[in-house]
Amino acid sequence: MLKTYVMAGNSFGNIFKLTTFGESHGEAIGGIIDGCPAGLSINFESIALEMQRRKPGQSPIVTQRKEDDEVVFLSGIFKGKTTGTPIGFTIKNTNQKSNDYSHNKTIYRPSHADFTYDKKYGIRDYRGGGRSSARETACRVVAGAIAKQLLPTIKINAFVSSVGEIFLDKPYQSLDFSKTETTAVRCPDLATAKKMESLIKKIRKEGDTVGGTITCVLQNVPIGLGEPVFDKLHAELGKAMLSINAVKGFEFGSGFCGAKMRGSEHNDIFQEDGTTKTNLSGGIQGGISNGMDIYFRVAFKPVATIMQKQDTIDTKGNKAEIQGKGRHDPCVVPRAVPIVEAMAALVLVDYYLLQKVSKY
Amino acid sequence: MLKTYVMAGNSFGNIFKLTTFGESHGEAIGGIIDGCPAGLSINFESIALEMQRRKPGQSPIVTQRKEDDEVVFLSGIFKGKTTGTPIGFTIKNTNQKSNDYSHNKTIYRPSHADFTYDKKYGIRDYRGGGRSSARETACRVVAGAIAKQLLPTIKINAFVSSVGEIFLDKPYQSLDFSKTETTAVRCPDLATAKKMESLIKKIRKEGDTVGGTITCVLQNVPIGLGEPVFDKLHAELGKAMLSINAVKGFEFGSGFCGAKMRGSEHNDIFQEDGTTKTNLSGGIQGGISNGMDIYFRVAFKPVATIMQKQDTIDTKGNKAEIQGKGRHDPCVVPRAVPIVEAMAALVLVDYYLLQKVSKY
Amino acid sequence: MLKTYVMAGNSFGNIFKLTTFGESHGEAIGGIIDGCPAGLSINFESIALEMQRRKPGQSPIVTQRKEDDEVVFLSGIFKGKTTGTPIGFTIKNTNQKSNDYSHNKTIYRPSHADFTYDKKYGIRDYRGGGRSSARETACRVVAGAIAKQLLPTIKINAFVSSVGEIFLDKPYQSLDFSKTETTAVRCPDLATAKKMESLIKKIRKEGDTVGGTITCVLQNVPIGLGEPVFDKLHAELGKAMLSINAVKGFEFGSGFCGAKMRGSEHNDIFQEDGTTKTNLSGGIQGGISNGMDIYFRVAFKPVATIMQKQDTIDTKGNKAEIQGKGRHDPCVVPRAVPIVEAMAALVLVDYYLLQKVSKY
Amino acid sequence: MLKTYVMAGNSFGNIFKLTTFGESHGEAIGGIIDGCPAGLSINFESIALEMQRRKPGQSPIVTQRKEDDEVVFLSGIFKGKTTGTPIGFTIKNTNQKSNDYSHNKTIYRPSHADFTYDKKYGIRDYRGGGRSSARETACRVVAGAIAKQLLPTIKINAFVSSVGEIFLDKPYQSLDFSKTETTAVRCPDLATAKKMESLIKKIRKEGDTVGGTITCVLQNVPIGLGEPVFDKLHAELGKAMLSINAVKGFEFGSGFCGAKMRGSEHNDIFQEDGTTKTNLSGGIQGGISNGMDIYFRVAFKPVATIMQKQDTIDTKGNKAEIQGKGRHDPCVVPRAVPIVEAMAALVLVDYYLLQKVSKY
Repeated sequence: MLKTYVMAGNSFGNIFKLTTFGESHGEAIGGIIDGCPAGLSINFESIALEMQRRKPGQSPIVTQRKEDDEVVFLSGIFKGKTTGTPIGFTIKNTNQKSNDYSHNKTIYRPSHADFTYDKKYGIRDYRGGGRSSARETACRVVAGAIAKQLLPTIKINAFVSSVGEIFLDKPYQSLDFSKTETTAVRCPDLATAKKMESLIKKIRKEGDTVGGTITCVLQNVPIGLGEPVFDKLHAELGKAMLSINAVKGFEFGSGFCGAKMRGSEHNDIFQEDGTTKTNLSGGIQGGISNGMDIYFRVAFKPVATIMQKQDTIDTKGNKAEIQGKGRHDPCVVPRAVPIVEAMAALVLVDYYLLQKVSKY
Repeated sequence: MLKTYVMAGNSFGNIFKLTTFGESHGEAIGGIIDGCPAGLSINFESIALEMQRRKPGQSPIVTQRKEDDEVVFLSGIFKGKTTGTPIGFTIKNTNQKSNDYSHNKTIYRPSHADFTYDKKYGIRDYRGGGRSSARETACRVVAGAIAKQLLPTIKINAFVSSVGEIFLDKPYQSLDFSKTETTAVRCPDLATAKKMESLIKKIRKEGDTVGGTITCVLQNVPIGLGEPVFDKLHAELGKAMLSINAVKGFEFGSGFCGAKMRGSEHNDIFQEDGTTKTNLSGGIQGGISNGMDIYFRVAFKPVATIMQKQDTIDTKGNKAEIQGKGRHDPCVVPRAVPIVEAMAALVLVDYYLLQKVSKY
Repeated sequence: MLKTYVMAGNSFGNIFKLTTFGESHGEAIGGIIDGCPAGLSINFESIALEMQRRKPGQSPIVTQRKEDDEVVFLSGIFKGKTTGTPIGFTIKNTNQKSNDYSHNKTIYRPSHADFTYDKKYGIRDYRGGGRSSARETACRVVAGAIAKQLLPTIKINAFVSSVGEIFLDKPYQSLDFSKTETTAVRCPDLATAKKMESLIKKIRKEGDTVGGTITCVLQNVPIGLGEPVFDKLHAELGKAMLSINAVKGFEFGSGFCGAKMRGSEHNDIFQEDGTTKTNLSGGIQGGISNGMDIYFRVAFKPVATIMQKQDTIDTKGNKAEIQGKGRHDPCVVPRAVPIVEAMAALVLVDYYLLQKVSKY
Repeated sequence: MLKTYVMAGNSFGNIFKLTTFGESHGEAIGGIIDGCPAGLSINFESIALEMQRRKPGQSPIVTQRKEDDEVVFLSGIFKGKTTGTPIGFTIKNTNQKSNDYSHNKTIYRPSHADFTYDKKYGIRDYRGGGRSSARETACRVVAGAIAKQLLPTIKINAFVSSVGEIFLDKPYQSLDFSKTETTAVRCPDLATAKKMESLIKKIRKEGDTVGGTITCVLQNVPIGLGEPVFDKLHAELGKAMLSINAVKGFEFGSGFCGAKMRGSEHNDIFQEDGTTKTNLSGGIQGGISNGMDIYFRVAFKPVATIMQKQDTIDTKGNKAEIQGKGRHDPCVVPRAVPIVEAMAALVLVDYYLLQKVSKY
């Protein structure tokens, strides 16, 4: 029988479950949202807005590639309301420009997935990242936008908290999240945003790229979400974030700083109403939400495609040179903000539905 | 019918799957390892050794609680070899000393899981952490010890890389991992180990606790492990680590540092043999292992139980005071080293078996 | 938050996994095939042929409804070969004729799913069966057609073995399966086929419907497929068949007849080459295939929509009358033959891939 | 690395999930019940009673093998009540008598799993059925007994409806289920029971075995259980039953008889209260329970171990002879009655908990 090379892991979630398909340069990408509750009046504008936030070409500091990203819903919605049946959707790949990539056919791009895909699957869609392209995250944003609508009372706010060495050094409580979308870089502190944008422009001119971090704050999360042994709430949030392209790290609450602290400073003292004076726990204790704000930080590496010449090898192991062409992001974090929010929403809605089994 | 409060998430893995049970103060803890290949000659001494490494009371800088932790295997092994059928095992709770905890019956301990368990399940085993206790990790170590034996060519080495503000500031390549077990704190650099141990002793005298980090290095991992969309290899490693008690953060490869870098410095340039000159990718590209060393760092908060008086509330919301009694760890990282290794082994063996479906 | 009504269970398979979406009268139906091995040259004609076999309007004894059922593949196939990534596909609902169903808006059709859907989901797509319609099985046939291509050496042959009281009373070994498709009723014995077709025509004239059975024979199945406790090969085949609309029973090997027999007549005696003299086991022992032919029989009830007046109730519990309109099958078994084969192929390919983990 | 032979499929259920381990001649068998709601006062006597019903040696017409089958609970229960955490339990194998089986070491017993296990796993526990032994069903009965207690308003009654050619030819509505346990054969009709018992005794004297069927009736099942596409309620019940050792067929409602009927006779006409006049649907429409009685029938083949000489082969393919020794059941159905009930209870409780996600 056939030699088999199989890709697993195209689904996310237990009850509210997203399964996606699609390569960057195929006909279309899309997905199935299984387990979406019935009776939700879908706000299609909100979905389009989230897609718009993720879209290339939206501001001068991101890639100028154009993607229309129109979502077509094929099932599960009747007269504007969800019916409880699976929601199938597709997004056409209208702007593939495969020619941009033909030079990659026999070359392994450094710090991309070319080498590992080739070794694992024996087949590679050289027209671009194929399945490994971040184009796939568009489907996550669609499902996340619906997940957000299922959790209207929960506030999910992500923002860029650093670009390269420029950090937003203010506690999130002092920020006005409504400012985030007013800046191209998606940092709610306008002075810091300006510096970040300047840096990104400078780096783009140099044909280089730069990394950054995103902080995400989840507010009004009900007490009790999380399965306390292997599926702790923060473990699932961590996996969700680490599954986003280019992510290298995840910390929540006190995070890596907490590892330097003493118990007497780190413990969150209860107040009579059940809230805690401090919140170094980051809203999660024993893997279960405690009603305080959940906050976490996600590290993104610099985009691997740079407009400079780099040494590399071809698929036969010969030395080669490569130089990025086409339209790429000099820094991925501004466009990753809606993706972080989408993945957080997917985790929350799934654990919220699981929790309904846990208690009633 | 009955009001239901259910706990999900007591299983880990897809093909090689561990399901655990047990509370810190019940009869026994244990588990079932499903999907363990047949024909493995079990090295029972290795398992006992790993249990010994995790055990309380092993050195002057850890809790002096005694637990024998003898593992009894009930199935799946015939004449010393695995048969491919599920391996059931139990570990008796011989030293529960429930009296140590009776004072906790109506009190919520700060930064513990008491409050969240009570709110979620409506029932709490006040004799100790119950299911939320780190005692549960003993089962992970059993399964991890078997997973390690299935992957004899892969080297898994974790070690303590910081305690409080004391950091091991050397590249892992310069360390001699065989020294790790010669120190009580499990840091392979003897000078740093000494400082860490002094700090822990000092902090214990103060009735306080301190956090720390563990670094783990996976060597000789075959190319091709990892499912590239939602189940990227590092996403699963991250979830595995974040599911360990007290963990607040996870980073791999360049991690949070990588977020400050530029593409031109971060990209790992290929050499003709398919290896890379640098390894900021941390051995994983596009969610798939590339044959280079995988390394990651895990942040642990300070233990929440301290021997000092703290304000808190009781289960009715009244103010109360609490002071830790009994035998607790002043710093959790020395004992967490074998747990980190065990969880890494579980992820690797599971993805190794998944990979067998992917390619043959 | 929202009142939730969720539908689970839209996926089938472990490694080779089909997830489907779509209602009979929505925009489109479709699915994602996850876990399909890479490198398979897809035979699109074979897929179209299987769709043609399932299609309404193909012969005078089935419904005259027209559905084009053109399958559009959106991903996972590059230059005619599978790449190992998920295969997304859609099939437009081109011929919905919702008006045929408007009379059903407030009426529960007897022995349909109207009542149970309404009670379970609180929402009903009255335009037809919606998600409960057998239209959904078109997606199974697509995935099954690809599964068949992955197993080129296994022969999968289903045929109609009874319609009403007319039985095909010959052992399957004496049949020429190549005749099956030459008859409208899909019975390979031409004389019996003729009788069945006459009966169906007579019953259709009476505005009535009739049940029937399908027998399926799987030949050249490798030894060793099946997971022997809860996921026995025949248990999964049984579930697969029972998940097809209108199925009321499943038996394999000696089946219900075997329950009347004695051990001394029922036991299959081994021959020196490992085959057995008889095969009352039906090719499966202890839940695992033994290399002999697997055969099973599936019972289908008569179609619930009849062209006669029936008493019923409306959604408020008032008495009502209903009479089927539109274009319905007088007997479902001829069109169900390719669906039975498709589901058998899905089980076989999934267990074949699981087996690759089991042994190498 | 190691040659791998893995057994999958040792778990059953989605939310209420049983994972089992253990071979017939190992140290112990046991399992973990994950997802059992908290707060249930466990009736240990009921569990013991169910175990007693399944136990060998309970009556003159079953095997005289003695097994004490004492269940030891290790976790998940505190002061007699479930806590929501996983319930671990073990049952010692006290009466293994491995010597009874030593003659089987190199022989394949006809219609047993010896041949297929050997081919699949390359390793066989020749001391008896090992993992393929029906001893494993004891764990199902433990979990089923707890499931029954979670569903106190649902009545689950299974009984023997045929042994060989002797059928209980009365509608289940006319039977008094309280009589079932008063007969050794577990048939509630005393006259029929007598005939069945005589037949079994006669067959045992001849050193032979005989098959039979069990009918199971589920009453007071809430409307709305079942996931309507691949996980229809009857599909899961079918799989549950087909996973029991020796089962060859499953039918529900009208079953195979329904395949002979016409729509006009088969349709269940609604009454004003939402019940139906007839119930050929068997309480399930579109895969979802409709509130009517669910009833189904399960076919068991005759036990393969007979006390007569049979031809067979050894593991090298040489001709051999075998004759059953030891203590075996002449007919399996009397002891299978509690197993059928247990599996039905497991499906119902799992779908009941899934349904809580579906609607609230």
